[in-house]
Amino acid sequence: MCDNYWNEERMRMGDKTKDMTVADLAIGKKIWVIAEGHIPSSSTGPAPEMTSHESICIVNASDQPALLTITIYFTDREPIGPYEITVGVRRSKHVRFGELKRPEAIPIATEYSSVIMSDTPIVVQHTRLDSRQSENALMTTIAYSQ
Amino acid sequence: MCDNYWNEERMRMGDKTKDMTVADLAIGKKIWVIAEGHIPSSSTGPAPEMTSHESICIVNASDQPALLTITIYFTDREPIGPYEITVGVRRSKHVRFGELKRPEAIPIATEYSSVIMSDTPIVVQHTRLDSRQSENALMTTIAYSQ
Amino acid sequence: MCDNYWNEERMRMGDKTKDMTVADLAIGKKIWVIAEGHIPSSSTGPAPEMTSHESICIVNASDQPALLTITIYFTDREPIGPYEITVGVRRSKHVRFGELKRPEAIPIATEYSSVIMSDTPIVVQHTRLDSRQSENALMTTIAYSQ
Amino acid sequence: MCDNYWNEERMRMGDKTKDMTVADLAIGKKIWVIAEGHIPSSSTGPAPEMTSHESICIVNASDQPALLTITIYFTDREPIGPYEITVGVRRSKHVRFGELKRPEAIPIATEYSSVIMSDTPIVVQHTRLDSRQSENALMTTIAYSQ
Repeated sequence: MCDNYWNEERMRMGDKTKDMTVADLAIGKKIWVIAEGHIPSSSTGPAPEMTSHESICIVNASDQPALLTITIYFTDREPIGPYEITVGVRRSKHVRFGELKRPEAIPIATEYSSVIMSDTPIVVQHTRLDSRQSENALMTTIAYSQ
Repeated sequence: MCDNYWNEERMRMGDKTKDMTVADLAIGKKIWVIAEGHIPSSSTGPAPEMTSHESICIVNASDQPALLTITIYFTDREPIGPYEITVGVRRSKHVRFGELKRPEAIPIATEYSSVIMSDTPIVVQHTRLDSRQSENALMTTIAYSQ
Repeated sequence: MCDNYWNEERMRMGDKTKDMTVADLAIGKKIWVIAEGHIPSSSTGPAPEMTSHESICIVNASDQPALLTITIYFTDREPIGPYEITVGVRRSKHVRFGELKRPEAIPIATEYSSVIMSDTPIVVQHTRLDSRQSENALMTTIAYSQ
Repeated sequence: MCDNYWNEERMRMGDKTKDMTVADLAIGKKIWVIAEGHIPSSSTGPAPEMTSHESICIVNASDQPALLTITIYFTDREPIGPYEITVGVRRSKHVRFGELKRPEAIPIATEYSSVIMSDTPIVVQHTRLDSRQSENALMTTIAYSQ
C-alpha cells in the first residue's frame, strides 16, 4: 500500500521524484546527540508503563537496516560504549536507557549525555517520563543532529 | 490587513522583498519526522479537552493548500498509511493521531513513529497531553525537518 | 565587562574574530514559527506566576533593536495580525500570547499557530505553563527557524 | 574500548572515516542560545534532587577541553557575564543556572535568556524541573545552535 501511495505521490510531485521511493529520500541524519541524561532512582505508579524512564525513539524510514552505536559520556569518567542497536528496515524503535546492559548498565541517578551514530540516516527523539512523585512529568525533544 | 502589514514590512526591509508577500517566503519544509509516538490507553479529567492525546500541529502560511500524507512506522510490522490531510491556504491545523481512521486506526498503547510529507512547505510541531494519572503532563517539540 | 570578555575571546579565537563584537555575530534568524498554540481557558494556583499561559521568549543579542511582527493563523478563519513587538538592543523579552491585544485579542481555548518575523536576527523559544488542573504542566521547544 | 569500537566503526564505514576518531568528527556547534530562562523562587520535595532548577546539559565529545562563556540577557538591564565553564575532554556537564555565582548570582523569579559560546564544538540542551507545586513538572529542548 505504501508503494501505491508513493506512486501517486510521485505523480503529484512530477519528474523530480521519478523512480524514487520513500526509502530513497534518505530521511534523517547519521549523528545524533542528547546532552541531557538521567535515569531516575525510583518510581510510583503501575509498572512497566508508568515506571520512570529515559528513552530514545528512533525511526529508520529507509530500505537499509540501521546499525546504531551509542556512547555514553559522564561528568567524571571516560565514556562507556558502544551500545549496539539495530533498527530494521522501515521500523520504529523505542529504547530505554535503563535497558542498555552491554558493555555495562548505565548507573542510575547519574548525569550523562549520549552520542548516537548510525550507518543509515535515522531520526532520534529524546523523551523522559519521571514518576518519582505521585504524578508523572513528561519532556521531549528532537535530538541534535548533524 | 495582513497585506497592508506586509506592504509596510516590505518598505522597511527594502528592495529585497519587493513584490513579495508573506506567502511567497515558502515558510517551512516538506518532510517532517516525529520519532516518538504513543496514544495513551486511558485518561482522567473532563473530555475532550483533558483527554490524553498525541497530536501534530501544522501551519501552512502559504497561498497554496498543503496536501499531507502521513506514514506510521511500527516496531514489528510494516508501516501503515498514507493518512491524507489537507491544510488550507493560510491555515493552522491540529490533528490528534487518535482521529486518524483511514486506512486504519492507529492502535493505542503501541509505540510508533511518523513521517509527514507535504507538497507545500509547512511547519510541524508534536505535542502530547498525558492525563492517565490525576494531573496532566505535557510535552512538545518542533518535529525534525529536511 | 562584556567588552573585556569579548576582547579575551577574540584573542583566544585568533584573527577570525578580529574587530568583531558579540553583537556582530548575528545570532539567530529572522523568521520563526510555532505551530502549536492554545491559551487555556482556566487556571489554578496563585496569579500571576501560576496562571496558565502560552508564551514566547525572545532574545536579541545584537546592537540593533529588533522589530517583530507576529501573525496568528487559525483553523477556520483568515490570519490576524500583525502584532508588533520591539526587543531592545541586548535584551530578552518574554511575551504571553494572552497579552497581545492589538489589533485584537487572541481567543482563548482556540487552536492557533504563529509566525514571527524580525528585521534583526533573534532566537525564539515557545513555552506553555498549563495549570488548569491542580498541578502545573510545562512544555517548551525552540521554535522552527529559517 | 571506545578506540576498539571506533576501529570497527571505521571498517564498517570504509575509507571515508580512515584515520578519524570519534573526537575528530567535531560534533556540535560553538554558539548556543536558550531564549527561555527563569529560576523559580521556591520548591517542594526532597532537596537537592527535587529542588526546582533550570539547567543546561553540555556534552563535549571532542579531544579538546571546551572553554565556555555564558552571557545572561535581561528584560530591562544590560547583560551580565561572562560566566566561565570548562567541560573536559569527552565529558558531560550539567550546570544549574542557580549555581552560577561569578561575576554575580542570577536573580531568582526573573526572566532571562542565555547565549553560550564555546571554543570547541559542543551540544547544549536546556531542561527545567519546576517543583513549586506538590508535583514536579519537566520541560526540555535542544538549544538553538549556529
